[in-house]
Amino acid sequence: MAQPCVAVVGGTGQQGRGLAQRLALAGFPVIVASRDAERAAAAVAAWPASARPQRTDENGAAIAAADVVVLAIPFASADGILQEHQARFKRECLVIDVTVPVVVADGVLSLATVEEGSAAEHVRAKLPPHVGLAATFKTIPAHVLDDLGHPLDCDEFVCGDSAESRSRALGYVQAIEGLRAIDVGPLSRARALEQMTVLAIAINRRHKIRDARFKVIGL
Amino acid sequence: MAQPCVAVVGGTGQQGRGLAQRLALAGFPVIVASRDAERAAAAVAAWPASARPQRTDENGAAIAAADVVVLAIPFASADGILQEHQARFKRECLVIDVTVPVVVADGVLSLATVEEGSAAEHVRAKLPPHVGLAATFKTIPAHVLDDLGHPLDCDEFVCGDSAESRSRALGYVQAIEGLRAIDVGPLSRARALEQMTVLAIAINRRHKIRDARFKVIGL
Repeated sequence: MAQPCVAVVGGTGQQGRGLAQRLALAGFPVIVASRDAERAAAAVAAWPASARPQRTDENGAAIAAADVVVLAIPFASADGILQEHQARFKRECLVIDVTVPVVVADGVLSLATVEEGSAAEHVRAKLPPHVGLAATFKTIPAHVLDDLGHPLDCDEFVCGDSAESRSRALGYVQAIEGLRAIDVGPLSRARALEQMTVLAIAINRRHKIRDARFKVIGL
Repeated sequence: MAQPCVAVVGGTGQQGRGLAQRLALAGFPVIVASRDAERAAAAVAAWPASARPQRTDENGAAIAAADVVVLAIPFASADGILQEHQARFKRECLVIDVTVPVVVADGVLSLATVEEGSAAEHVRAKLPPHVGLAATFKTIPAHVLDDLGHPLDCDEFVCGDSAESRSRALGYVQAIEGLRAIDVGPLSRARALEQMTVLAIAINRRHKIRDARFKVIGL
């Protein structure tokens, strides 16, 4: 059976680029998607050959072709993209949400209040019911993912709307070198994961580092 | 100068017992406090000599004598204890909040909704203004603290209502063998720490382990 095709929406941004390249290195057929197909094509031309995607496309066509769609976009853009393309998702599609709605007020980082409890739960509410959703890649810094020479050496937490969604997402996380994938259960666990992202950024700022990320001890 | 005296309120419970013993082992003069002074005295008689507190007392007298008060009580008991004893806190007292309001609904763990945003921020609202507050020891499992033979080998996050509160609390955390204390900033960071506690318990349950706790990579 052919490897499932993974579209990375927002694949030219730092986080999307890191994920697309790491997934390509892990052997998955990747489509780098962007609002502008030409921009996607130009971007990947500069990537190392081993980390290059199978192809590039604009968001709608990439979503229509994909078995897995990684939403590597700012949280604020999610509603618009999901609304525009919701009829295009394949019936058995798995969506992987990596968004974290970080806000800064008076110099203090926090999470934006999201009515559903987390960005992942918000995305769930906007997706067609036949699409599965997992949330992961929330806590690893984008620039670490994007620096292919940087060992990841951390854990990545996976939650999702069903055991099947989690199981599928775990496979992708685990396939990326240097990551241990940890199943943390239902989608509501994204409330913790998104808070941990804010915590990691706050630790970076306070301690003048850039790479804070997490490992679970005792597992 | 004499070491500041640390009262552990709830010092006969699992978490309080672990903290009191670990702090005594680190060389601090500890008062193990309980609603019932006799119960506290009976409990510590069984502790190893090196981990025994300087003395035991009932909550009110212990708080009145302490430079630092560790609230090792269930979150649900905090309001009552703070209300009853609020006039007893010393002027320069530091309170260390370790509570996490975990609830289980339909078999799913989550945090109770706390109007102030976190248990720590709630405790802040109930304390006299002249008392400083830090929140820490939120993410390390109580039974790991309580098992003196168990290496801690993890990070412990410290947030607080001022740089001074954090700095004082960091000293206690760092003095405990096997812990690295990480300053994570303002008290609102407790929102992340309390979510991480729920996440750790959820990981324990899902993966049939007991000791899940956290380390920061890259720091």
